Amino acid sequence: MSNEREFLKKLIEDIRPLDQNAIDLARSHQSILTKPAGSLGKLETLSEQLAGISGDPFGTVDPAAVIVFAADHGVAWSQGVSAYPPEVTGQMLLNYASGGAVVCVLARQARITVKAVDVGVKTDLPDASGYISKRVRCGTDDWSEKQAMSEEDALAAIMVGADIVHSEAQNGVKLLGFGEMGIGNTATSSALLCALTGVSPADATGKGTGLDDAGLARKTDVIRMGLSLHAEVIKKGDPISILSALGGLEIAAMAGAYIACAAYRIPVIVDGFICSVSALLASRISPFVKPFLIASHKSVEIGHRVALSELGLTPYLDCEMRLGEGSGAALMIPIVRSALAVLKETATFDEAGVADRG
Amino acid sequence: MSNEREFLKKLIEDIRPLDQNAIDLARSHQSILTKPAGSLGKLETLSEQLAGISGDPFGTVDPAAVIVFAADHGVAWSQGVSAYPPEVTGQMLLNYASGGAVVCVLARQARITVKAVDVGVKTDLPDASGYISKRVRCGTDDWSEKQAMSEEDALAAIMVGADIVHSEAQNGVKLLGFGEMGIGNTATSSALLCALTGVSPADATGKGTGLDDAGLARKTDVIRMGLSLHAEVIKKGDPISILSALGGLEIAAMAGAYIACAAYRIPVIVDGFICSVSALLASRISPFVKPFLIASHKSVEIGHRVALSELGLTPYLDCEMRLGEGSGAALMIPIVRSALAVLKETATFDEAGVADRG
Repeated sequence: MSNEREFLKKLIEDIRPLDQNAIDLARSHQSILTKPAGSLGKLETLSEQLAGISGDPFGTVDPAAVIVFAADHGVAWSQGVSAYPPEVTGQMLLNYASGGAVVCVLARQARITVKAVDVGVKTDLPDASGYISKRVRCGTDDWSEKQAMSEEDALAAIMVGADIVHSEAQNGVKLLGFGEMGIGNTATSSALLCALTGVSPADATGKGTGLDDAGLARKTDVIRMGLSLHAEVIKKGDPISILSALGGLEIAAMAGAYIACAAYRIPVIVDGFICSVSALLASRISPFVKPFLIASHKSVEIGHRVALSELGLTPYLDCEMRLGEGSGAALMIPIVRSALAVLKETATFDEAGVADRG
Repeated sequence: MSNEREFLKKLIEDIRPLDQNAIDLARSHQSILTKPAGSLGKLETLSEQLAGISGDPFGTVDPAAVIVFAADHGVAWSQGVSAYPPEVTGQMLLNYASGGAVVCVLARQARITVKAVDVGVKTDLPDASGYISKRVRCGTDDWSEKQAMSEEDALAAIMVGADIVHSEAQNGVKLLGFGEMGIGNTATSSALLCALTGVSPADATGKGTGLDDAGLARKTDVIRMGLSLHAEVIKKGDPISILSALGGLEIAAMAGAYIACAAYRIPVIVDGFICSVSALLASRISPFVKPFLIASHKSVEIGHRVALSELGLTPYLDCEMRLGEGSGAALMIPIVRSALAVLKETATFDEAGVADRG
């Protein structure tokens, strides 16, 4: 067994379930706060989830950070399944590094940091100033024609994500969100979603960054080709083999990062479609990852609801967003903080001299 | 014509449409930012709306504030249409004043102030320390048996809201949200919604703070009684007469406040069910109020979607909340800020050296 596989196995074994005592404490404290029982809906269950993760109902979710993983997809370079040229992956990575991208703006609003990681960009980039350079390989191969990457590369990318979360945990981070950048990665995610759940390509494939109807039809056809080519691997159902067949490197890194969040007990926000597929992949590697995941927004991309439903997650935001790059995760940070603050700071019926229901 | 009626007429005449040039400028700037066109969905249209209101696409929404209007409902004291005793209205007003309520916690998270206003609480309260004392009368009369209040009182309450917004405008506030507290006010709002739209009581009435099925049936019956008693007034369709027939004072004050926001060009966040009905009432007094309204969350209370749909608003948050008191408005503040910040701060394709779509 490779070092990576061994380390991943160890990481999974380290995952413990949520702390039921802390959840019960949060729930009973919610019931004495000056508001009708249950009237804050998902904010209340979120505060219970945070308690179960940290073990302390009155803990903290700061400092928080968003980490954006970038990688290229051979299928985008060969088959043209995106409205944007594939060179944009590397260009946007530099945009995250220099603070100009949307996720950087949203992160400043939320008073959190953004880190960007090159897990597998294809193009040459200037020296790694402002981003983390962990390139496993220069993009994947075209999964509609061959295996996207070797299992060794897939495991190496998983470990990139896990290692970064390990560093964050050592630095005391209390809440994470992941984002992704990779021209073509909605195509890869749709293919992965089909492979992992059996949903049809038509029900898993959307217009990504902005294909027209003909582009969508072509993208769906390419996904059908890929699923047909890798039918034997898909049938066997091993998540890491499926990941190797279809990619991508950023999806692998995030899967490793979600698993590490569960192991290091860090609540983690799931952004849009690609992130939800990566989280689903992580949950197929270990189902014990699920309780550590927090949904954020409801994406326009149609496969998102399929993946969230498989994960048992319901989103908090409904803004018709489809940007990716962790934008929904960054927008979710103040909501997570608020859910916790309500539990910690709201006056009780006794403290405020307010009558509870008769 | 009374002074109040004259002043209200003047206020309505002052409302100007949104600035189309500023909207166009915001829209064209959105198209050159480093993100796929339209990929931020409702955040983009929100930034255009803010531009149209202020006239400046790169303006500010700070300082912002939430104002909570509190009043009692005779129907709650006489007919028991709430899960909570009616004394809670005044008790909660003091809780807003002392910073212990949920909306205060959420406002601290959003770094905004909360002001609480007594427009018509029934119970005696300690001297007005920490809240604004503008009591028009000690609650409404039971609208299932008689007119809730005179038209003079309704107009006076409308002017309380308008005056407070006028002060806020003079102090330079750039964004407002309103909240309400009034035991029984979901019953009043359901009755108003039926009166204003013709929707049936069964489709407009929910469990409020937590009625059981029998309580819901009783509440719906009381609403049917009220609608039957005031059928003549409702048929004539004058919004202020309908408001006088059914109440409540906080709903009147918020209606005046929404109108004043339009007149003073302050974007205003609409919270849950009661607020949406008050905003609908305001839009019946003047349809030119609508473009100044920003939705927040999707409430569990069933009438909320009816009122939002009449207003042409779609919510940004879906958290299964049903608390009121401006909680959804406070939670929406960081989202409004973020929508504006993205427009102002995101790098353009040219600035970032990122290729736009081919």
